[in-house]
Amino acid sequence: KVIWTVLVTILGYASSLPVGDDSLCTAEELAKYKIIFTGKWSQIAFPKQYPLYRPPAQWSSLLGVTHSSDYSMWKKNEYASNGVRDFAEKGEAWLLMKEIEEAGEKIQSVHGIFSAPAISSGTGQTSTELEVHPRHPLVSFVVRIVPSPDWFVGVDSLNLCEGDHWMDEISVDLFPYDAGTDSGFTFSSPNFATIPQDTVTEITCSSPSHPANSFYYPKLKILPPMAQVTMVKIKKSQLGLSAPFINLPAKSNEIIDSVS
Amino acid sequence: KVIWTVLVTILGYASSLPVGDDSLCTAEELAKYKIIFTGKWSQIAFPKQYPLYRPPAQWSSLLGVTHSSDYSMWKKNEYASNGVRDFAEKGEAWLLMKEIEEAGEKIQSVHGIFSAPAISSGTGQTSTELEVHPRHPLVSFVVRIVPSPDWFVGVDSLNLCEGDHWMDEISVDLFPYDAGTDSGFTFSSPNFATIPQDTVTEITCSSPSHPANSFYYPKLKILPPMAQVTMVKIKKSQLGLSAPFINLPAKSNEIIDSVS
Repeated sequence: KVIWTVLVTILGYASSLPVGDDSLCTAEELAKYKIIFTGKWSQIAFPKQYPLYRPPAQWSSLLGVTHSSDYSMWKKNEYASNGVRDFAEKGEAWLLMKEIEEAGEKIQSVHGIFSAPAISSGTGQTSTELEVHPRHPLVSFVVRIVPSPDWFVGVDSLNLCEGDHWMDEISVDLFPYDAGTDSGFTFSSPNFATIPQDTVTEITCSSPSHPANSFYYPKLKILPPMAQVTMVKIKKSQLGLSAPFINLPAKSNEIIDSVS
Repeated sequence: KVIWTVLVTILGYASSLPVGDDSLCTAEELAKYKIIFTGKWSQIAFPKQYPLYRPPAQWSSLLGVTHSSDYSMWKKNEYASNGVRDFAEKGEAWLLMKEIEEAGEKIQSVHGIFSAPAISSGTGQTSTELEVHPRHPLVSFVVRIVPSPDWFVGVDSLNLCEGDHWMDEISVDLFPYDAGTDSGFTFSSPNFATIPQDTVTEITCSSPSHPANSFYYPKLKILPPMAQVTMVKIKKSQLGLSAPFINLPAKSNEIIDSVS
């Protein structure tokens, strides 16, 4: 992950393009993708303080947007919007949807919103479809970690366009982020607003560097992925009568029984 | 509501057509609708046992489908599928999405799946878009009541086609249903499977007829609507670059602060 990030950074600077730049997309008009989110938040991978009840470990609805580089849903080391704060703290999507709508109306930087149902355990799957456009080839989304103070996983401005064509498939491992709006330290910490608000930061096995932190695993070098997202281009031939129809993977959902 | 139901029933029998029949839709190819779900589950309207914490009153993700009369997501007085049971009891959407997918593949009875993000209080709003087709003009969806044993609100096979055209707008008041799979009596009852499974039944202010029931209000004739759904046809002129884009209503979300 570190090597990859460095590589992208080098290539980005070398070609004078910011990462996620969308100005050179000459792919065909529209592309549709199936997006599959897989929770990997098991008690085996994350034994520390694993939430078993009221509520047990689970994932909120997934809320995403396809957009241009003029819009940003959230960004590491920048301040979360009020909409992202509501979503990360409470799973409340309305304000974030309004913010996205306004970005779409005012600066035409948004192509569409998409959402997928919540997952009632730490290790299930959910799925939906999204559409990208050469002027709006970037994908961002957030999924709240439940329970948590203001923690989420997601993707920021992932470019599905590669020059003159759309990517066939991409998978990304997801790691936890802190929205910087609530100072809780553990999954079930009571609400305690962070004033002044902090920026969005990645939570690692060593940061925040405090033994009480739910993700603090001093013996690990990096956390295991907490979730994974896969986006697969839907072939034109699959766009028949049942066009917007989702073909879900065969793998069954591993439901950890809710104790609540 | 009773009068309307009776009227539809009479008209249905009179013309020898089942309610929700889709065989006569000659409207243009596709129509897109904005669907807005509004929770009206306030402590004022539903004071009895109103859930204030762990979790407070809220709504799950909305999961819906557009389909023909060959498919049914759920139906009053019939048994809920395993997918509807998982969704009504736990908000787990995966199995229900698989069932819908299979109906789409095997009998071509499904046009598309849609979902909207959860609402973190009893009285907020959520929204998404859906697409109907003359051969698949019916809309069904479910939203789980959280917390509850297996209660939900939703719509079963609402026909958006009126002969040769698509409805411009429709609003429907929503009342609670019991999926018949868990015998809990109150919002926060512990899990207790109903064996053998019962059919889907409407919960009213007098049924189940027991004072402990969370919706038992013996002084009322009918319950106030617990939620409302509005579907508005998206005009072709609005289908520009930002085609799948949601125009949310101006009304702000009334968020009841979570006590948990």
